[in-house]
Amino acid sequence: MFAIVMAGGSGTRFWPASREHLPKQFLSIASQQSLFEDTLDRVSPLVGYERIYVVVNRVHEATTRRLLGGRPAPVLVEPAGRNTAACIGLAALHLRRLAENDPVFVLPSDHFIANPYGFRRALAAAAELAYSGAVVTLGITPTRPETGYGYIEVGGEIERVQDEWYQKAERFVEKPDRATALRYLSSGRHFWNAGIFIFTARTILTEIERCMPALHEGLCRVDAALGTPGYAAALEEVYDGLESVSIDYGVMEKTGAPLLALRGDFGWSDIGSWQALYELRRDRYDEQGNLLPEHAVAVDARHNLVHSATPRLIALLGVENLVVVDTPDALLVANLSHSQDVKRFPELLRRTGRTELT
Amino acid sequence: MFAIVMAGGSGTRFWPASREHLPKQFLSIASQQSLFEDTLDRVSPLVGYERIYVVVNRVHEATTRRLLGGRPAPVLVEPAGRNTAACIGLAALHLRRLAENDPVFVLPSDHFIANPYGFRRALAAAAELAYSGAVVTLGITPTRPETGYGYIEVGGEIERVQDEWYQKAERFVEKPDRATALRYLSSGRHFWNAGIFIFTARTILTEIERCMPALHEGLCRVDAALGTPGYAAALEEVYDGLESVSIDYGVMEKTGAPLLALRGDFGWSDIGSWQALYELRRDRYDEQGNLLPEHAVAVDARHNLVHSATPRLIALLGVENLVVVDTPDALLVANLSHSQDVKRFPELLRRTGRTELT
Repeated sequence: MFAIVMAGGSGTRFWPASREHLPKQFLSIASQQSLFEDTLDRVSPLVGYERIYVVVNRVHEATTRRLLGGRPAPVLVEPAGRNTAACIGLAALHLRRLAENDPVFVLPSDHFIANPYGFRRALAAAAELAYSGAVVTLGITPTRPETGYGYIEVGGEIERVQDEWYQKAERFVEKPDRATALRYLSSGRHFWNAGIFIFTARTILTEIERCMPALHEGLCRVDAALGTPGYAAALEEVYDGLESVSIDYGVMEKTGAPLLALRGDFGWSDIGSWQALYELRRDRYDEQGNLLPEHAVAVDARHNLVHSATPRLIALLGVENLVVVDTPDALLVANLSHSQDVKRFPELLRRTGRTELT
Repeated sequence: MFAIVMAGGSGTRFWPASREHLPKQFLSIASQQSLFEDTLDRVSPLVGYERIYVVVNRVHEATTRRLLGGRPAPVLVEPAGRNTAACIGLAALHLRRLAENDPVFVLPSDHFIANPYGFRRALAAAAELAYSGAVVTLGITPTRPETGYGYIEVGGEIERVQDEWYQKAERFVEKPDRATALRYLSSGRHFWNAGIFIFTARTILTEIERCMPALHEGLCRVDAALGTPGYAAALEEVYDGLESVSIDYGVMEKTGAPLLALRGDFGWSDIGSWQALYELRRDRYDEQGNLLPEHAVAVDARHNLVHSATPRLIALLGVENLVVVDTPDALLVANLSHSQDVKRFPELLRRTGRTELT
């Protein structure tokens, strides 16, 4: 079995800790190491590092290789970010040459998973389904009426593989409004789409050919150059002409292959904001519900999150529900419940030409 | 006329901007320059820099001379801090040799005065009273039931000098409780003690002789060495044996000289906390009542004070009533209304051996 770790993403929700050159997956926000390293170490017991293909944008290649450390995972470099369909297609090209009928776990690199054992059990069960040509997705049992996630609607019989449960995935639905999310929460037929997929290289390349002919044509040109000195040039040229399309939109919503959703209950989160991070790390709260690094001191302060990328002392006094993010060139002090608006600062800074801080 | 500017104080209420080596009077918190420089420039139109005697603790001498810049004010260095009685006595020794019957303005160096014209008018009127041998203090008309200040209780006829009003000062009272402060506010007989005094060198040295015989004896030994190579050694030895006593307690409360209080209404504050500073600077609020340096950005934030000693960007989001103090090695995020507790951090840091941050 193989894994594809997609490390090409970028985002601004963790500004000022995250920057264009240092997106969320490279931050150490959920453990002592980066989310990217957590992702590798979480799946490696199942596949081994040598079979984890990391796909990364060229601008993040150096950071990626540094964080890999001694892990012998192959790195595939994209000349530009073209969303998940191209990323997965490119990795599948490489994997098809090695083992086109082996299951591949497709994993975002910036998520949190509380229970890695449960996660690997779900993947192992999904792999069994993938052998037979199915496209499998993990459907996370919703625990709140979340309006920030896409959902998978399931139907038909509930079936069992290993000790896990799955159903047919009937529909991928975009982020719902609050009323719809409340309905989904109690329907028993809607699961969070975690963007985790399991299939063989042959299956996904066949589905790309059927659903995304332009991408397929590009991949064929790359494939022809694979292992030759012309590979880099072919990749550059093909990527230059590719549209940015997600695998969800490009393939999942229109695939002809059996589409299955395996239920996952392993404490998943995409950590969409500082507040989401704060809520995930209850295990590390002090007695006043503060989540602090060692060099922070809190007096009469509760329910605060401090993230620090400097050795400076941080003193909190009489404050609550704040996120304080300390970096060498920018400091954020925000109300935790406003943390979804953090992205407004990099927008503002770009407009005023201060791109060095974005 | 002469002035004594007392720049020897230390304190922890403006931590982390203020430190042991950089007390409040050297911070630029009320204007573009330090409170110490503001103090010099405020009184210089009345006396000229050459007649402003700056008294400073040896540990702050270098900072003091740097901030003096081109101002030709004489500097008297104390080998150790021994409170205001010793400081004033030492300066009076020097001034007695120049002009023992000229009025001297004794000024703390870390206060804020909104109306320097009114302040100088009050000093000029007080000087007229001091010529006749009175000890004059400025009594600030209270504007709130402040429990953090000492009060002067006045009595007898209200009299006039130049365009100012004065009465006899009958009693100096310590910081009152809330109920007493409320009573003082409406009594018409209680004024804030700003620690500003006006007298001649002859008057104050006579009063020190009468009220503080130990200090007087020490000053006589320093006086004998004045202008000789033995001055520094004599000063060191005398200071070593001196007790720390304030001029209020040592002289004012027991003086036999006529003690007068001249009313002052020139927008005085001792800026006792970050909150006091915030409230003083209404003239610089943005539309949301934030007091920000140029390199701060506020979104949905109001009533915040940011003080910065670094060029880092500071971003506020959805927060209110905070004070954020950014320094190279320590950051404070506090509720403005808790800012009188800021001194707990240097205490805490000293206890844990992190004196480099105090």
